[in-house]
Amino acid sequence: MNVDALTGGFDRRDWQEQTATDNPVRFAMIGVGWWTTEQAMPAVDAGDLCETTVLVSSDREKAADVAADSETVEHAITYEEFHDGAASDAYDAVYIVTPNALHLPYVETAAELDKAILCEKPMEATIERAERMVEVCDEHDATLMIAYRMHTEPAVRRAKDLIDEGYIGEPLFVHGNMTEPILELVPDPDQWRLDGELSGGCAVMDIGIYPLNTSRFLLDADPVAVRGTVASVQEEFADVPDEHGAFQLDFPGHVYAVCTASQNAHLDSHISVLGTEGKVRVEPAFYPWDDRALQLSHEGTTVEIDFEQIDQMEEEFEYFAHCLLTDTEPYADGEHGLVDINTIKSVYEASETESTVRLD
Amino acid sequence: MNVDALTGGFDRRDWQEQTATDNPVRFAMIGVGWWTTEQAMPAVDAGDLCETTVLVSSDREKAADVAADSETVEHAITYEEFHDGAASDAYDAVYIVTPNALHLPYVETAAELDKAILCEKPMEATIERAERMVEVCDEHDATLMIAYRMHTEPAVRRAKDLIDEGYIGEPLFVHGNMTEPILELVPDPDQWRLDGELSGGCAVMDIGIYPLNTSRFLLDADPVAVRGTVASVQEEFADVPDEHGAFQLDFPGHVYAVCTASQNAHLDSHISVLGTEGKVRVEPAFYPWDDRALQLSHEGTTVEIDFEQIDQMEEEFEYFAHCLLTDTEPYADGEHGLVDINTIKSVYEASETESTVRLD
Repeated sequence: MNVDALTGGFDRRDWQEQTATDNPVRFAMIGVGWWTTEQAMPAVDAGDLCETTVLVSSDREKAADVAADSETVEHAITYEEFHDGAASDAYDAVYIVTPNALHLPYVETAAELDKAILCEKPMEATIERAERMVEVCDEHDATLMIAYRMHTEPAVRRAKDLIDEGYIGEPLFVHGNMTEPILELVPDPDQWRLDGELSGGCAVMDIGIYPLNTSRFLLDADPVAVRGTVASVQEEFADVPDEHGAFQLDFPGHVYAVCTASQNAHLDSHISVLGTEGKVRVEPAFYPWDDRALQLSHEGTTVEIDFEQIDQMEEEFEYFAHCLLTDTEPYADGEHGLVDINTIKSVYEASETESTVRLD
Repeated sequence: MNVDALTGGFDRRDWQEQTATDNPVRFAMIGVGWWTTEQAMPAVDAGDLCETTVLVSSDREKAADVAADSETVEHAITYEEFHDGAASDAYDAVYIVTPNALHLPYVETAAELDKAILCEKPMEATIERAERMVEVCDEHDATLMIAYRMHTEPAVRRAKDLIDEGYIGEPLFVHGNMTEPILELVPDPDQWRLDGELSGGCAVMDIGIYPLNTSRFLLDADPVAVRGTVASVQEEFADVPDEHGAFQLDFPGHVYAVCTASQNAHLDSHISVLGTEGKVRVEPAFYPWDDRALQLSHEGTTVEIDFEQIDQMEEEFEYFAHCLLTDTEPYADGEHGLVDINTIKSVYEASETESTVRLD
């Protein structure tokens, strides 16, 4: 194994040309839950190319409290005020992190207001609403990026580099898993993730999307067929089809990904790609609070590859801001996100019909 | 995590009551290829409860050469002579390691001769022939064990112990893989594994059976439904449906196993079981020349568990001989093997029909 090739040449920000600006991209955070305050806002604060200037919440008081603790936030407004265009001079872009079925209206308003949009994945709760999201952004020529933080995660990018450089030969199989005990992490039986209308699905929709989308990213391909099974067993999951799910994606050229996801299991995440001449594995893979680990097996040798552990959300915000500042189209656009929504809904259909579902 | 419980109490031969005998079980080896001479015969030699006394081959001279190097072999006979009952006083049991589609006739003769039978997996090339194998053993009240060496492999037994003791909570998902570059390991394009008539299938049949059967063993359950895809791409595999294959098994209680197998890929094998409270993984898992490794994740901690690395074939022969000496029914009988054949054939059917196949 060529150790030089392994240890040299990797640039986790090979997309970056501009590292500083006098005019950072100013974000309105749409939704001020724990993810916004504990993950997104600190990431934006740490970044060089963006800042948080507006908070949008149903709870003005809560938003104002968070704003008071921030050095950059200028406005705390309600959702209604946002839709009315309040404080629209104070932000350039929005980050949407509401429940899935509430993404579309904020995208519509942001597009109408000529703002750039970073929208959390899954992009919406249904195919129709996701398609509408793409349409509205096209109509207003608005920049839309779906927030797949794996695309700028160094472990995953490094794994893709190794695959692209031929270290595993021709890719053949992906194994992926993401599982968590959601009722321990968020101890609220009324949370929106367990509400089928608001979420559009549970295990496959919310976290199965990680092995699914990361398979697409690592293979640089989209699935052509899907099969699988989902089930809800515990009564807390009665409103969604998938407390647990397992699914298989067929990629072009007879490459198969087998994936599992559960919202009621041991916390675990991994993805591996096996090829004709080696294997690359990221484990842990998907949770921002775990240090990611990368392993390569090739020519009878297995090596652990160290790399800088970074703040995934900072990388993502900086990448998006960089795209806006340099007038570059972000990688994961609405069409990219739509492939995941179609695939996830096809997993549910495949489970329901006990058949393989072909994707367009 | 209770480290005492992890390090103590494991007995890799908890089935063993008798450790010595003046009358070892005398084996006739049916098939004298490299597996017999390099794996099976040394294992029997090393064991305390069995010995090799007869070799049966199409090539009398080759068998005689091997016999000449052995201290215990008394007879080297042809397949025809075996069917005629030659040297039948010189052996108590047969070990059948011919191509899959040639297992049945030796089982029939052995059963008629009142011999015990250890038959390699997969037990036969078709469902009909596997069913006939079970019938003929029933008719003659012959002991038949299918040679699943994972059932007596310490890493796998220890993993099962940890699962049974509740370390991973309720099992939910299995990930399993077995892959190898068969044309590098056995550089002969005319080998029987690539002949559909002789093998009955390739990747899923020959090595996919490891993650499949080990899932059954670890979960102590049989699949109720199966889906998947198989494909042959390279011309050397044109006569079999599955150079590569991926399949998902549904077990009772919404437990899912996702498995991959290829005869034209990087050498790799692993199996893991994830539950509500932990995960156990064996990797490498299935190749006798790899030291197996066992890992347990539980309560936020991951530990590597060391155990004695043994000769898998010695364990298997000793177990089978022990069953015969103590008049115990071996664990993996013909009905057990038939479940695998049915499941494997259903993978091919599922791929062909693009649908889920329910198992009886």
